[in-house]
Amino acid sequence: MRIALLGYGTVGTAFHRLVNEKKNLLKEKYGIVPQLVAICDRSGCMVNEEGISYETAYKAKTESGRVCSEGSVMRPMDVIRGLSLDLMVETTTANFKTGEPSLSHIFESMKRGIHVITTNKAPLALHMPALLEEASLNGVEFLYSGTVGGGTPFISFGDKVLRGNSLKGIKGILNGTTNYMLSRVIDSGLQMSEALSEAQRLGIAEADPTLDLNGFDSAAKLVILMNHLLNKRVTISDIKISGIKEDLPKYAGDQTVKLIASSFPEPKVSMEVVKRGSPMDVGGTYNVLEFSVEELDKIYVTGRGAGGQETAASIIRDIVELKEKLMQKSYQI
Amino acid sequence: MRIALLGYGTVGTAFHRLVNEKKNLLKEKYGIVPQLVAICDRSGCMVNEEGISYETAYKAKTESGRVCSEGSVMRPMDVIRGLSLDLMVETTTANFKTGEPSLSHIFESMKRGIHVITTNKAPLALHMPALLEEASLNGVEFLYSGTVGGGTPFISFGDKVLRGNSLKGIKGILNGTTNYMLSRVIDSGLQMSEALSEAQRLGIAEADPTLDLNGFDSAAKLVILMNHLLNKRVTISDIKISGIKEDLPKYAGDQTVKLIASSFPEPKVSMEVVKRGSPMDVGGTYNVLEFSVEELDKIYVTGRGAGGQETAASIIRDIVELKEKLMQKSYQI
Repeated sequence: MRIALLGYGTVGTAFHRLVNEKKNLLKEKYGIVPQLVAICDRSGCMVNEEGISYETAYKAKTESGRVCSEGSVMRPMDVIRGLSLDLMVETTTANFKTGEPSLSHIFESMKRGIHVITTNKAPLALHMPALLEEASLNGVEFLYSGTVGGGTPFISFGDKVLRGNSLKGIKGILNGTTNYMLSRVIDSGLQMSEALSEAQRLGIAEADPTLDLNGFDSAAKLVILMNHLLNKRVTISDIKISGIKEDLPKYAGDQTVKLIASSFPEPKVSMEVVKRGSPMDVGGTYNVLEFSVEELDKIYVTGRGAGGQETAASIIRDIVELKEKLMQKSYQI
Repeated sequence: MRIALLGYGTVGTAFHRLVNEKKNLLKEKYGIVPQLVAICDRSGCMVNEEGISYETAYKAKTESGRVCSEGSVMRPMDVIRGLSLDLMVETTTANFKTGEPSLSHIFESMKRGIHVITTNKAPLALHMPALLEEASLNGVEFLYSGTVGGGTPFISFGDKVLRGNSLKGIKGILNGTTNYMLSRVIDSGLQMSEALSEAQRLGIAEADPTLDLNGFDSAAKLVILMNHLLNKRVTISDIKISGIKEDLPKYAGDQTVKLIASSFPEPKVSMEVVKRGSPMDVGGTYNVLEFSVEELDKIYVTGRGAGGQETAASIIRDIVELKEKLMQKSYQI
């Protein structure tokens, strides 16, 4: 399996290390022989048709901060257009204004019949219906389990466990940073700004937490879950979004406040009052998703959001799933 | 698919009605044509090689309280030994002393190459390792998803979502009745006996709640989950069991008490102190299972326990899974 890896930051390097570690397992258990023939970061691309070793790429990255030598002129688009690839793995940074450069990488790969795995929420939040259609038109697989709950398999739960049941709606806490902050404000009486500083000090919140606080991160995940699990062809502009504010909604002693993303009655992200002791009352950095299933009452899946390691592991799982999908297809022919 | 249904109480009748309702779906979507050629209850058996309609059996049961006419002498064992069957569905009542008559029904069916689906926890709690071995020896499928969390797919989550990850241990609240009672005692200051009366009045607790209160129901489910998900060949005699008592363990203001079943450090069921707002703090009749996964931190699945309807629906899901397993086998040959 000839792979181009675009983006070589925390997730990209963790994926490269992991795929290297799991080489034998992937080959013996699933018949997958992954070969990274190109790795690109902002500086350009490292290319080796025989496969790039983790040591080589990691050494270049840590020593010079870039994967390619200074003279390199190859760009990601050249790699997608010029090399013979089976799979493009996208781990670039989210840009919620344009979705670029990820969006172009993905479209171009699909047009050329290259399967795509992405961990970048932005292109999906902005254009998921178009991306799903493009994948289907070109007969390529498009996998993105790392974009939502990489540490907690919401998508896989819906796909594999609820298959055959009718899923009516979803609702949940999809952002660990804001959940941590709200817990600290409500349970320990901190100011919102104090809770943010604390979360940053603990490595829970990023240096720029804007997309967490304003609800965009939750909304992006809601878009992905609604498209994937409910077949609702929505984008982030269809979601009514408000984030967390000092000014909390009124709540009683047996209640608390959570930032909830829900698909019904209208798709939205906002602070809501939740009963203490209910499955939606999870504190700390936990995420939770409620599945309203026709035949089964409500079911909840709870776990932590993903760091770089878990997101990298989700790419490996997607590669295994890609292989299985391709084998099923070849049986059907 | 020629089926004998043993047990025609709440679950058995609900299953018969459901399989009748879903007839077309099962045929068109999965290629399954279920035919109930025998139905047995305590009174004896109704047999029809052409298939017994729901109307006929339900009419007999509601009018006379039994499925067979008074002169009938056929017993379940005669059905298992005498008819040509593909599948035996066991929905008889749990007997935690001997596991009978369910245990003999299951062993005899397996010996004769008949696949088995059971919703009865008792034979599994007492002899699951032996039953798994017998199924394997005779090359038959043995499915029991209705015995644990029929309303909340713990087994299916472990099987299908965590596949490929290393599951290290499980821990959870597996009994809705006692969870409801503990919530009422702790949050509303009821006496244990008052909480029980209330639960019985609301139809949450059964008339004889002994197996819920003494922890045996939770322990039986723990045995099934440990055998199935962790490959630990334990029976209920390996579990250290204590139920709920007036005399609660000491807990602080930000804590509560739950009846917890856990596979580690030793398999046991007992009241434990749990932090408020943690995923294990679910109130009411909710069940929850914590999966400790090597690669993924902890993941929780939460939902309600099963009534007759959900248990009947779990048999349908098991039938679909049986069909898929048989098709996979035929591919492998």
